[in-house]
This record gives sequence, structure tokens and C-alpha cells, in this order.
Amino acid sequence: MEPRIGEVESNVTELLRLGEEAVAHGAKLLVFPELCSSGYVFQSKEEVAACAEDLSDSRTISTWAAFCRANNVWMVAGYPENSGGTYFNSSVLIGPEGVIGNYRKNHLWNNENKYFEPGDCNHPVFRTELGTIGMMVCYDGWFPEAVRSFAVQGADVLCVPTNWVPIPGQAPGEKAMATILCQASAHVNGLYIVAADRVGTERGQEFIGQSVITGYTGWHLAGPASPVHQEILYAEIKPGEARDSRQWNEFNDPLLNRRVETYTTHTPA
Amino acid sequence: MEPRIGEVESNVTELLRLGEEAVAHGAKLLVFPELCSSGYVFQSKEEVAACAEDLSDSRTISTWAAFCRANNVWMVAGYPENSGGTYFNSSVLIGPEGVIGNYRKNHLWNNENKYFEPGDCNHPVFRTELGTIGMMVCYDGWFPEAVRSFAVQGADVLCVPTNWVPIPGQAPGEKAMATILCQASAHVNGLYIVAADRVGTERGQEFIGQSVITGYTGWHLAGPASPVHQEILYAEIKPGEARDSRQWNEFNDPLLNRRVETYTTHTPA
Repeated sequence: MEPRIGEVESNVTELLRLGEEAVAHGAKLLVFPELCSSGYVFQSKEEVAACAEDLSDSRTISTWAAFCRANNVWMVAGYPENSGGTYFNSSVLIGPEGVIGNYRKNHLWNNENKYFEPGDCNHPVFRTELGTIGMMVCYDGWFPEAVRSFAVQGADVLCVPTNWVPIPGQAPGEKAMATILCQASAHVNGLYIVAADRVGTERGQEFIGQSVITGYTGWHLAGPASPVHQEILYAEIKPGEARDSRQWNEFNDPLLNRRVETYTTHTPA
Repeated sequence: MEPRIGEVESNVTELLRLGEEAVAHGAKLLVFPELCSSGYVFQSKEEVAACAEDLSDSRTISTWAAFCRANNVWMVAGYPENSGGTYFNSSVLIGPEGVIGNYRKNHLWNNENKYFEPGDCNHPVFRTELGTIGMMVCYDGWFPEAVRSFAVQGADVLCVPTNWVPIPGQAPGEKAMATILCQASAHVNGLYIVAADRVGTERGQEFIGQSVITGYTGWHLAGPASPVHQEILYAEIKPGEARDSRQWNEFNDPLLNRRVETYTTHTPA
């Protein structure tokens, strides 16, 4: 997608148009980018407030829920959440019966720190008839600890609304580092990662597109998508296969082989 | 390298030959593969015992130390360690003054579990005049928690003696997953990763070569090396740059941005 900053109504309309197209092609679980209802490059808390919505009383989320109900599908999408005057960079999981779960971005990138609070819900997973689903947002993916948190709680599919920005040093012909992180995280955890990025340049900030659907072995099943144009990717997800795949041989399962007691998490004093 | 199973003396001789060549090209820190003195595919504990050496009384390590002293260089290499009849898949760091540090592989792969004990020294780092150095071995790299453990303790350079085996599902033209893991781990921790793999097929087990030297941004500085032939890679390491690189912007440093209290390490009961 290419959301426009502050234009919630037209962004939601465009999301539904893309959603209808995906459903027409058989999609059952649809993933949209980070802050896709609002755009990303806020310049004041007032701008955030004007776009942010309360999960339990949101016109945007009601519209999305109606879409899921009408089409018997599930979706994940990023939106700015207003929780009693505190703002979160959130992602919602909706199914045919309504809202299933909410996630608040745990690791804030750059100026987000001026407008949003870091997430306060840790790394929840949600059991659905499509499999067990976790959500994380953009910079969360730079923390393998976060992906592991979803995995050890049983996530089969990690949905990642994101707004990836360029990373210095990428040589021509190289894959974007963000997509390499998806590969590594999917592989070492044996789960699917569905990362939906935005495209376009907003108030001078470039976004890189290149959405990917990564299989539980770490190889991309679809994408990278276009770096500049809106594009829908499709892939078949088999949650049971992800779960069964982790027994790599008689001795090795990457979740069971962790030696948690040996890891150092804090810089020694 | 292509070590031969059980042929310690000729493996050590070949290592020194390669070492002399690297030194002649200006190398100061040399990294060799996992179990490079002994070969890898053991078929009994007796075979391990015949090759394993005590760190403090090892002909192999004395030979390597003499090489480092004579050439004023540092080296890391994998060897089977005999610690009072207990065997570890170990890696040693040696400098011009002698042995600096030892590491015992923490996550054992497949049949290694029959012959070796898991490491009991956690994730030590060693301060040297070349920078702060950590060592890990092969399957350890599948645990981002391990790389993070070295990083938070101040590692600038992570040396990885390894014996990578093929991973199913790799499409033609794709980089090996093991090298993708190096990229992701280097990038999210802002450190160098120097992974020295073996080549060849031993008792039916294929090894994939493709050694890489990965910079602190996550892009490869040298390699992947040949998948089938012995090959020496060279790159310039700037430990201070790795340390300074982590302040990505006013708000973000991937080591400081971790939210350790929010991560789940154990599968909920």
C-alpha cells in the first residue's frame, strides 16, 4: 500500500479495494502495512491524535470487521491506537466474528518515540482456525528475542505490518536487509513470516516496499514485491507443517535446543 | 580447509601451510574451521578420544601457539577438547603470547550429542589489542540469543569455526542459509562475524564451504568462498567502527533498545 498521511478515510477505502482484490484471488488471511490507516511521518502529537482510534470504538476497525465478516476472512493491519489519550503504534487481528487480538509495537523507531508509548502487552499469540498467529511491527523485527517470544508461545504465522526505510550499505543486487532478517527469523524458529510493507515517499521519508512471505524453512514463498508500486503477494500457509518441521533430526529442534540459562541479556556492570 | 578424519598431524600441517600464506598476505587474525585438527564425522567415542587434546597439554595447540608467536598474529581454530575424559567441541583463541581463551560449543548438532558434552562456559569474550573477540561454533549460530550474549558483553568480532551442512529447500542462485544467518546476526548486533567453514565430503557427509566475513552493517565484506575448494578470504576489521555504528539515530541503538523484561524465553506450561 501507499497510505497518505492524515487521510484516514481514503486510506481505508483503498485498503478495502485491495482487500476485495485479494479475496477475489482466494486470500483467507490478509496482512496490510504499519499505520496503514493514517500514514507514518507525523510531525506533532496533534496529528497523531487526529488519526488515532480507540480499539473498542473505532470507525476504521468497524469497517475492517465488516469486511472480514462479509468475506469470511481474517486480516491484520496497523493503525494508531488511542488508549485514553495514550497513543500506541498498534496492529489488530480481525476475523469473521470480529476483533480477535491487538498488539502494541514494542520497539519504537526514531521519531515514533516522540508520539507513541512503547507497547505494554509483550508478545501475545492468538489461536485461530487458520493457525496460531502473532503480530509484530517493523523495528520489532530487529530483535530476535521478540520473534523467539512468539515462537515459544506457539506462533505458526507471524504477521508483520511494517514501514521499512532504506538501510545504508546495500550493494546493487542485494536483497534488502529487512527481508534477510525475515529469512533468518523464519528459519531459526520454523515459522511463517508475512511482512507487508508500504511504498512511496512521505514528507521526504522514503519507504522500500519489497514485502515478502517467508516460509518456515527461511526461503521466500512470495516476493520481494515491488520497491515502488502497490502489489499483492499470495502464498499458501500450512501451519501444521511449520510445527512439524522443527524436529530437524533425532537430536535437534531449535526451540527445544535453546540453553536459556546460559544466555547473557544484560551488559555486565 | 578440508580436514581428514583422524589425521591430526597432517591436518595441523595443512593448517600451518594455509596460515603462512594468509600471514604473507598481511592477515593478523586468522580463523579456521570447526574441529579442523581432527575432522568431523566421528563414529565412536574412541575415535574422538584418539584425536582430543587437553587445552593445557596439547601438541596441536602448542604448535599453533608457536606459529602465532613466530608471526606475531592471532588465530581461532576448532579442536576436540579432552577435559579429564569429558569431550567438548571447542575453539581456542591464541595470540603472540599464547592461549588467550577457550570456548566449548554450547549447542550440539545431531550425532555430536553422542560424543561431546554441551559447553559449560556460557559465552565468554576476550579483550585483545585487535578488539574484543568472541567465539561460537556452527549450530550456535542458529541461536540469536547466543550472538546477543556476546554482543552485550562487548564483542566487536565474533569468530565462528564451523562445519556447515546443506539445508533443504535452497533455490538455485540463493545464498546459503548459514550465510544469511551471519548477515542478520551481524546487522542486529552491529558486530563483525568471521565464519570459517570446511569443504569436502567426509564419510558421506557433505560440507558446504562458502565461508564469509560479514561487516557490522550485515553486508558481506568477503565471500562467500568456494563451496568445494579450500580458499582464504581477507577483509579489514575496524572494531571501533562497529562499536560506534550502533547509534543508528537519536533514539535507536539495537543493544540498548532491547526490552528484556517483555521477552518470553520458556514455553508457557
